[in-house]
Amino acid sequence: MKYFEDFQVGESRQLGARLMNREDIIEFALKFDRQPIHTDEVAARKTIFKGLIASGLHTLSTAASIVVDEYLPDTAMVGGAGMNNVQWVKPVRPGDHIAVKIEVVRKAHHPKTSILGVVTTHQTVTTDDGSVVMTGEVDYLFGRKPA
Amino acid sequence: MKYFEDFQVGESRQLGARLMNREDIIEFALKFDRQPIHTDEVAARKTIFKGLIASGLHTLSTAASIVVDEYLPDTAMVGGAGMNNVQWVKPVRPGDHIAVKIEVVRKAHHPKTSILGVVTTHQTVTTDDGSVVMTGEVDYLFGRKPA
Repeated sequence: MKYFEDFQVGESRQLGARLMNREDIIEFALKFDRQPIHTDEVAARKTIFKGLIASGLHTLSTAASIVVDEYLPDTAMVGGAGMNNVQWVKPVRPGDHIAVKIEVVRKAHHPKTSILGVVTTHQTVTTDDGSVVMTGEVDYLFGRKPA
Repeated sequence: MKYFEDFQVGESRQLGARLMNREDIIEFALKFDRQPIHTDEVAARKTIFKGLIASGLHTLSTAASIVVDEYLPDTAMVGGAGMNNVQWVKPVRPGDHIAVKIEVVRKAHHPKTSILGVVTTHQTVTTDDGSVVMTGEVDYLFGRKPA
């Protein structure tokens, strides 16, 4: 079990990749981001994006799912606390596979309880050719090591 | 059509509300946030949360969908650009309805093109009793008014 104390600032891992297919892009957008650019290939072709692109929230959620499945198991993670400086840098298109580089950039004691600590990670989301599509910082709460 | 120039710093609107039901909470989490606290009622009862809670990404995506459906139509919105200081303050539980207060807090010209502007909004997500469950800033790109 990996506790707050076991994370080191500077450590990083490469995670993924996962396919973003057309059906999933449209399905996500029909629920959460009903804009033609995400739901309608023909309409999307007439925009500055020249074709269907994934909702930024879909890219974010998929990147998070990679972290949940590959990085957080066997840790004392209690929950996500927040996000900072999330930027959608470049569109994600059907057929792209997205991967996540996660790096520990800061650690802090929890302001309200001595049993938790906050680990801040910088995450870089890339597609197959290494293009950066999203970046951001995510804070996670981890349990502290039992005495 | 509402352009960049038409948004005023300080203007705010109350949007929503939308139901977060148990089935949707579990379905979202099975795709993007596979943790028992979001997918398994019995396991969730044994945690500090004392029951099933929505994935923070699900709350975020649902809040975004309210903004897309109620705030962005008939505007010259081109896309979301980024998010800052997103904080999950309190859990969202099955049966909660979430609402969004959106306020324009900053406007800036786009660093790279004169045809777009950046509108920064502060968003406060609340449940039925007015409890704040999530806060954050979201930047949107809007087209500038044609001369």
